[in-house]
Amino acid sequence: MVKYSIGVDYGTQSGRAVLVEVGTGREVATAVKPYKHGVMDEFLPNGTTKLEHDWSLQHPADYLEVLQVTIPEVLKSAQVSADDVIGLGIDFTACTVLPIDANGTPLCFKDEFINHPHSYVKLWKHHAAQDEANRLNEIAEERGEKFLQRYGGKISSEWLFPKVWQILNEAPEIYEATDQILEATDWVISELTGEINRNSCTAGYKAIWHKQDGYPSNEFFKALDPRLENVVEEKLSTKIVSIGSKAGEITEKAAKLTGLKPGTAVAVANVDAHVAVPAVGITEPGKLLMIMGTSTCHILLGEEEKIVPGMCGVVEDGVIPGFMGYEAGQSCVGDHFEWFTENCVPVSYHEEAKERGINIHQLLTEKASQLQVGESGLLALDWWNGNRSTLVDADLTGVLLGATLLTKPEEIYRALIEATAYGTRMIVETFRKYGVPVNEVYAAGGIAEKNTMMMQIYADVLNMDIKISASSQTPALGSAMFGAVAAGKERGGYDSITDAAKDMGRVKDYVYQPINDQAQVYDQLFTEYARLYDYFGRGENNVMKTLKKIKKDSSLGKKEEETVC
Amino acid sequence: MVKYSIGVDYGTQSGRAVLVEVGTGREVATAVKPYKHGVMDEFLPNGTTKLEHDWSLQHPADYLEVLQVTIPEVLKSAQVSADDVIGLGIDFTACTVLPIDANGTPLCFKDEFINHPHSYVKLWKHHAAQDEANRLNEIAEERGEKFLQRYGGKISSEWLFPKVWQILNEAPEIYEATDQILEATDWVISELTGEINRNSCTAGYKAIWHKQDGYPSNEFFKALDPRLENVVEEKLSTKIVSIGSKAGEITEKAAKLTGLKPGTAVAVANVDAHVAVPAVGITEPGKLLMIMGTSTCHILLGEEEKIVPGMCGVVEDGVIPGFMGYEAGQSCVGDHFEWFTENCVPVSYHEEAKERGINIHQLLTEKASQLQVGESGLLALDWWNGNRSTLVDADLTGVLLGATLLTKPEEIYRALIEATAYGTRMIVETFRKYGVPVNEVYAAGGIAEKNTMMMQIYADVLNMDIKISASSQTPALGSAMFGAVAAGKERGGYDSITDAAKDMGRVKDYVYQPINDQAQVYDQLFTEYARLYDYFGRGENNVMKTLKKIKKDSSLGKKEEETVC
Repeated sequence: MVKYSIGVDYGTQSGRAVLVEVGTGREVATAVKPYKHGVMDEFLPNGTTKLEHDWSLQHPADYLEVLQVTIPEVLKSAQVSADDVIGLGIDFTACTVLPIDANGTPLCFKDEFINHPHSYVKLWKHHAAQDEANRLNEIAEERGEKFLQRYGGKISSEWLFPKVWQILNEAPEIYEATDQILEATDWVISELTGEINRNSCTAGYKAIWHKQDGYPSNEFFKALDPRLENVVEEKLSTKIVSIGSKAGEITEKAAKLTGLKPGTAVAVANVDAHVAVPAVGITEPGKLLMIMGTSTCHILLGEEEKIVPGMCGVVEDGVIPGFMGYEAGQSCVGDHFEWFTENCVPVSYHEEAKERGINIHQLLTEKASQLQVGESGLLALDWWNGNRSTLVDADLTGVLLGATLLTKPEEIYRALIEATAYGTRMIVETFRKYGVPVNEVYAAGGIAEKNTMMMQIYADVLNMDIKISASSQTPALGSAMFGAVAAGKERGGYDSITDAAKDMGRVKDYVYQPINDQAQVYDQLFTEYARLYDYFGRGENNVMKTLKKIKKDSSLGKKEEETVC
Repeated sequence: MVKYSIGVDYGTQSGRAVLVEVGTGREVATAVKPYKHGVMDEFLPNGTTKLEHDWSLQHPADYLEVLQVTIPEVLKSAQVSADDVIGLGIDFTACTVLPIDANGTPLCFKDEFINHPHSYVKLWKHHAAQDEANRLNEIAEERGEKFLQRYGGKISSEWLFPKVWQILNEAPEIYEATDQILEATDWVISELTGEINRNSCTAGYKAIWHKQDGYPSNEFFKALDPRLENVVEEKLSTKIVSIGSKAGEITEKAAKLTGLKPGTAVAVANVDAHVAVPAVGITEPGKLLMIMGTSTCHILLGEEEKIVPGMCGVVEDGVIPGFMGYEAGQSCVGDHFEWFTENCVPVSYHEEAKERGINIHQLLTEKASQLQVGESGLLALDWWNGNRSTLVDADLTGVLLGATLLTKPEEIYRALIEATAYGTRMIVETFRKYGVPVNEVYAAGGIAEKNTMMMQIYADVLNMDIKISASSQTPALGSAMFGAVAAGKERGGYDSITDAAKDMGRVKDYVYQPINDQAQVYDQLFTEYARLYDYFGRGENNVMKTLKKIKKDSSLGKKEEETVC
């Protein structure tokens, strides 16, 4: 009898359920539900409470609606009975957090807080806790907190504690009324199972939790703010459950919501990038997965905990139980090309694309594909959105070098793509240098699936084969696999994610292989990239920061001027 | 009785005559004649003889036609009698040279050479003598030739001797048949006056002539090529006449051609940029004139001969008799913005410009004008076409630094403009550093006349007032002034160009003055520019050359590949 598992992937704009055949990983049905409230960055749902700059909220009711709509839909369209669904797993954007009361009810559901911005879900890209993040990093550095180096020396404003501290600073009444602040991914699982199980992935990557050392000390939190001294005991929990575990089973209430049977196994919550790893079949060290979209996230397993400069985090049990999960990132990949096509492509190119019935990216890609490696004479530093790994410096900015009066748009386009590939190579070389082997490379995400030129460039620049995820919804597949693991072998699932990945993880047959001639030229170009990377990125020439300072002063001047007028 | 003088300005595509009132400099009438053969860079006039890459020729008959058409036209339209025209001066692009026979007839007029590319005029931008220029520079450096330092260490492939040597190498029969090789500007004057008088301006700036030391030695020429040992005696002349002198008078033949009276005074030939100097009233040291177009040429007078790194040349009597004329240059100014608008401006901007009935430069300028100094966070190196002064390095390439995902086209546009202003400041500071004072700045040319934002940026960056030429045809006005000097005071003209400049040289009333706040921010930005200028320009990081080498290799590879296919 064929059994099924369901993976639900919670993205920034919508949630997606995929019904997957256990044993083969075949994706039988998919349903997508856009969030009713979308991303709230201007107003609360009341339409009148204005949000400040850099805010980004979500509504937790949207998450439940995804379950309510998409799970029945996939069952129906596949004509699969809920009886044959053995497990459910979910993955989420992170760090996406919300305050709940002692009953698990989000504060924003309660009348007294419904018009209070701080009662809602703070989405991963809520950037209004930057002051708190800066202060946290300063204090951690002053105190010589060891945890910093596990995160490339910097805690991001996107992560848990800056967001919690922002609530405390700006809305102490919300902080006070909060029983727990937790990841949305854990909250959704608690709604399905009736119990809260914080997952080791977000705890490790977003909440500075360490399997051996736990959270930062109460002294550290006290140094931040005396009111935060017992934040872990008061608002979080020290009970962290490894991903790959079972969180519980579908409750009667959740069964009504989803159409699943009560007692269906539910996996501990997970994160979108990390859950993709077993979905391409990776369950062992040395295999790097790039999840490529507007930005790129790199996940790599290791046997030991090594300190690698500029990575986003290293977490035991963070990706696959029993291994160190390393994360690195590039903050500007797809975004880069979007910026370029919006700002730098001449009319004639748009006309040509229109005439030929292709989009502008296709046209540019076609033209750029015809270039030889090195033919443009251009070299770029891919820092249009700062540099996450390996420099962890948001104040770095983009560079284009080598332009002449004959430089063509497709040459710039290709140079930007190449720059992101050099950025990845820098990450790979840094991992290796600091003792974390990288032997194979995998890629998932829209770019990996569609952009053959880009993937060939990556293969040539890295001088390594690149395998591509067979699924176009890799995270959901990965979540379904964790669902099957939660069910266990007895119920028709698997006893471990490793076993599940052997059967269900899949890559395409076509493997991008480096072309030797091209790889050799890219070696030379990378040497030049690396030199500029060090020169501008490691303090030898701080021109980018100076320009940002001048820019800031100039904006201040402008503001003052406007005020005067 | 009002007297008139005529200035004829020979540009790259056309010739222009301007009838000017002596005493006031008022421009009474203008006529333009495009060259029938234009710039020949693909075929000879026969339509079948194909020219090689980098060739750029002109037809000397076109120059005579300019005289024949435009001079009668200005007289007619102004209803001025030829009797009242006391003088004529001309200026030309340079180094623009042609071979003539002993009768002064261009070889390309002769049947036996009519199909031979080397018999035609080699235009200033004929770049096919690069190999000869490279070899010449190598040998001059090996021999420690002192003249090199008067030209920033490098003789350009555009100048006389590389072009002469190319003729000898590729067409010894033409070289053999040539009586003299001379500047087109001198040839046109010889056609008007019946005698050859080589002018001190092109001799100095383009033919390595020095008032005290003369031409390079015969030993040097022999070292280049034994056949060149006596090139000066055989193909040039050591008789050099200072600009500001009278070349002769209109002959009967020339009177028939032009409609001028026989005996009308004719000035020694001149060059377009240099002749503009007295036209804005400059006849003394310390006043820098920028002639701003696709590229910018800087002319400055000095009392003494100083060696300034990276200048284009220093020539005694080269600009105003009795002074050292210094020339410097930027190879990419207007070209820069042309490249940008052609390659990097999105559709929406073109649509906005169209809707508002303005051109794209106007729209970008308007948007860029609204930016505060430093607001964009961008900094560029203006090397899209290499760097002439002060680095004399054609292999340098453009850099844009500071880009983010919020960078707008107008910000890049402004950054490119600012970069050219920094380039000018670098030239000014270099002159000062090496003992040539720069106390005032003047500007002429289309950009100076029209682009108020750009001129204000220049004033702020230089932190100096900038005066703008009152004439929109400054070189022709200057030529007419030299014509009036050739006539002399007795005939209603002037005894010196200084006297003429006092009466006839003119600048606009509006003077661009630095705005202190802006100048201060530009000071900071220039510091950063200067640092990158040194880093990339003086050998600390040769990435631009490495990229050009890789580019060259890649093109070779492509060529080979194409050949194989």
